[in-house]
Amino acid sequence: MARANVREKLVTAGLDTLYRRGFNGCGVEDITRAAGVPKGSFYNYFESKEALGIEVLERFWQSGGPRLKILRDQTLPPVERLRRYFDSLADVLAGWDHQTGCMIGNFSTELSNQSRAIRERLSLILTEWTRAIEACVREAQKAGQTRTDLDPATIATFLINAWEGTCSRTKVDKDSKAVEHFREIIFTTLFR
Amino acid sequence: MARANVREKLVTAGLDTLYRRGFNGCGVEDITRAAGVPKGSFYNYFESKEALGIEVLERFWQSGGPRLKILRDQTLPPVERLRRYFDSLADVLAGWDHQTGCMIGNFSTELSNQSRAIRERLSLILTEWTRAIEACVREAQKAGQTRTDLDPATIATFLINAWEGTCSRTKVDKDSKAVEHFREIIFTTLFR
Repeated sequence: MARANVREKLVTAGLDTLYRRGFNGCGVEDITRAAGVPKGSFYNYFESKEALGIEVLERFWQSGGPRLKILRDQTLPPVERLRRYFDSLADVLAGWDHQTGCMIGNFSTELSNQSRAIRERLSLILTEWTRAIEACVREAQKAGQTRTDLDPATIATFLINAWEGTCSRTKVDKDSKAVEHFREIIFTTLFR
Repeated sequence: MARANVREKLVTAGLDTLYRRGFNGCGVEDITRAAGVPKGSFYNYFESKEALGIEVLERFWQSGGPRLKILRDQTLPPVERLRRYFDSLADVLAGWDHQTGCMIGNFSTELSNQSRAIRERLSLILTEWTRAIEACVREAQKAGQTRTDLDPATIATFLINAWEGTCSRTKVDKDSKAVEHFREIIFTTLFR
């Protein structure tokens, strides 16, 4: 098997396994087994499970790129973009049968005290994510579509944190109730 | 050492260790070492790490009982109770130097797919917690202190989920910024 092919198999299987079972809830052997590659090959590609974790987190974040574009879609009113954006995130949760939550929240909760490298990467992702939402909130304020008594960056940060708590709750409930509550509160109190 | 004493040491050390490091981020040996008891003694008291996890979660939840009483304090207006209640939760996070988040959210995120017993216990706790907040929100609505266009149970569930996401974020940031954002948004948009 070509070298790049094995590496890609490890990243793909790593994403699935770490997402479903949590970082500490599985071992390297679970990942190599899921990837269908010899256990011993792992360390030829990654110096540690943490190194794979960083790559998988980055892959997860990058896979959300097309969804982030919704927030910049000038053919839609800003609030409609926010609504569609959170709907698209809800579709991800539903696509995994509300078993997995969001990997960004999962890693934030599980690994912030364990891996400085992962915590720093999470911090960068959260900053980038906040900016994308903040820009759309700012447009909504300018368009007179939302309240202007709150700072767009504060709203964006709160939305992300509230969303992450919502994702975690779907794992307990195993359904979309928490998402429906999020939608109802946010689009009544912050945006209309 | 008396039997009850060893058991209590395991629960106390288990709470501290599982809270700081996550359920899967430490082993039984880490807990017995922190408790200062022989490794081999663990299974005389708990049939599994999961069994200790359930007891520790229950202990964590029960320790919040005095704080929950704030929500029923008839000497204060309902919105002031909600404010003081979330302030008291923020004090818990600060007391652990924003390292640990909330054990309920931590276990929800980490263990919902791994332990059915813990997930069921989380579900009961979340229901009880929701009811306590819901009752206070209902009083605030009756007192004309908050908007009445949203169901108190929906508001309560959302508050808990948003709070849990906030707790997780404090672990990444290692400070109280997320708590301040939560306070500002909630007490501007839902309550005044």
